[in-house]
Amino acid sequence: MSDVARRAGVSLSTVSRALRGAPGVSPAVRAKVARAAAELSYVVSRDASSLVTGATGRVAAIVPFLRPWFFGAALAGISAELRAAGLDMLVYEVGDAEGLDSYVRALPLRRNVDAVIAVSLDLDDRETKQLDEIGVPVVYCSQRAEGRPSVFIDNAAAAAAATRFLLNLGHRRIAYVQSRDETGFSWISRHRRDGYLQAMAEAGAEAVVVTERDGPRGGAAAAARLLGAPNPPTALFAESDDVAMGALGVLRRSRVPVPEAVSVVGFDNHDVAEVLDLTTVAQPVSELGAAAARLAARLLRGGADPAEHVLLPTELVVRRSASAPRTAPGPTPEIPTDRRGRL
Amino acid sequence: MSDVARRAGVSLSTVSRALRGAPGVSPAVRAKVARAAAELSYVVSRDASSLVTGATGRVAAIVPFLRPWFFGAALAGISAELRAAGLDMLVYEVGDAEGLDSYVRALPLRRNVDAVIAVSLDLDDRETKQLDEIGVPVVYCSQRAEGRPSVFIDNAAAAAAATRFLLNLGHRRIAYVQSRDETGFSWISRHRRDGYLQAMAEAGAEAVVVTERDGPRGGAAAAARLLGAPNPPTALFAESDDVAMGALGVLRRSRVPVPEAVSVVGFDNHDVAEVLDLTTVAQPVSELGAAAARLAARLLRGGADPAEHVLLPTELVVRRSASAPRTAPGPTPEIPTDRRGRL
Repeated sequence: MSDVARRAGVSLSTVSRALRGAPGVSPAVRAKVARAAAELSYVVSRDASSLVTGATGRVAAIVPFLRPWFFGAALAGISAELRAAGLDMLVYEVGDAEGLDSYVRALPLRRNVDAVIAVSLDLDDRETKQLDEIGVPVVYCSQRAEGRPSVFIDNAAAAAAATRFLLNLGHRRIAYVQSRDETGFSWISRHRRDGYLQAMAEAGAEAVVVTERDGPRGGAAAAARLLGAPNPPTALFAESDDVAMGALGVLRRSRVPVPEAVSVVGFDNHDVAEVLDLTTVAQPVSELGAAAARLAARLLRGGADPAEHVLLPTELVVRRSASAPRTAPGPTPEIPTDRRGRL
Repeated sequence: MSDVARRAGVSLSTVSRALRGAPGVSPAVRAKVARAAAELSYVVSRDASSLVTGATGRVAAIVPFLRPWFFGAALAGISAELRAAGLDMLVYEVGDAEGLDSYVRALPLRRNVDAVIAVSLDLDDRETKQLDEIGVPVVYCSQRAEGRPSVFIDNAAAAAAATRFLLNLGHRRIAYVQSRDETGFSWISRHRRDGYLQAMAEAGAEAVVVTERDGPRGGAAAAARLLGAPNPPTALFAESDDVAMGALGVLRRSRVPVPEAVSVVGFDNHDVAEVLDLTTVAQPVSELGAAAARLAARLLRGGADPAEHVLLPTELVVRRSASAPRTAPGPTPEIPTDRRGRL
């Protein structure tokens, strides 16, 4: 290392910081050190240095599934902030509860990360306690975990607001489309449903919850069921934009005009929501990931409260898929006398 | 380790294999060893064992961006196969060319992976040579790299077939919507365009290539431009389903009937394509990732040709967004004589 320092014309500690990717080294100096090291074929083994410092320089992001849009957006936020902190990101797709269980059991035997970011995992108390014992900090992303570092939105409040939006437009028959607990989103799903139920109860409107599989196909199945109901709803509030898109597809194919006959509201502000004119609750998915990664990095530096909670805001984005119903209650428009006379 | 072996009632080598996650150990035995190790608080440091074996047990997946649907699907395939091989997955989002460059320069200084899977990176010859020199195997996923292990589809042939499908339906004015080189897909983008150009040239039809930003917004902008053209096309072939969706949104809002006035064909078979009734070229995205991960694992075991190429099939999925044009050339339907007489 002293050869590298001499060749690059910098101090030993600068070489160490530059090669570790630690902050406080300018890009120019970092490049100079890297060049000198390359010329001398000097190789830092992170694994060797971790034996000295006890730190691996890696953080694991655990996700239930990698394929849904949500996780790509969350991982993008995590990735950017970990990189800024000089940390590498390991990603584990745990799938169902068994996958999580085997990951949690394997982790202490492997000691290959400094911290874990658990993204939208459906954890019961037992599993949360299991994660408490893996020996590294665990940050909960898109889930509020009591007494543990968490970054989340207020799903219930946001869903209640979206439901009230439809109620205030004049809808009374509003169905909520919920996914079955298959995708790691059931925590979120329950809280959004609770917000919907609360707003409907406040308004004295009868709640209708339709449960189908997740994603566009679930939304399509839910729309088909609702179109076959004795008294179809005038509005659908879907748990996610993916679900809403499936419902929109069925309504379009059936030539049920949206929003004239049925209003549709989603949740997420998926990249495709804008082109579909979908009214939706926007949540800052990448920012949830980024905030969780910053919190993990601060915990590793000892600069964060280990029970810190970060609440991020949501926003109802009004587009054209929801409007007042055709049969809106309210004052009947006055018919001009001369016309009435002729009736 | 011998204490663990004694407690679990298995051999030393079984303990070693079980704790390393190596194959050839049954789940039951692995669980028994894990339990015995946990009871004895025996911890394997992967970092310590890597100093002995020279292997880190980790593979890096490098992606240009994490957010687009494509990368989630590819990473899901990579993740499942790496896990099956007992390997962990590091994920790096490199973004633009500069990000890749800094990753490639940093890698040999860190020696933290056994192999790299480069997913849909736009690499010129210089960058490919740079990757050759990082000292670990590099597998190219969704890109054909000459003389290097690669997993890919034949984008040009698939795009030519989709274009011929439209030509055979009777379309002559078919526009191709291409994204600007922003997203790491330009290799793919060029090959699909070449397939389109080839099929159009073969048919003696005039090619129209519209270049816009990537994703639904690019597709929306392209559709708007084409609707404002002197002689609008009767069909759009979009480089990706994301782009096609943006075009469908503009056509729907403008009440241009699809497919009656304009046919739309995409590429990918995105999860949302089915609910949008989008005719599209399906590619096996997760399987591209899975095949790349299997190839990487085989290379690490010394059981693969370091220049192995894996070509995966595509399939044109015909839905309702494309049909024969209203003004299809061909024999004019014969008008019955009695009617003609009356004209």
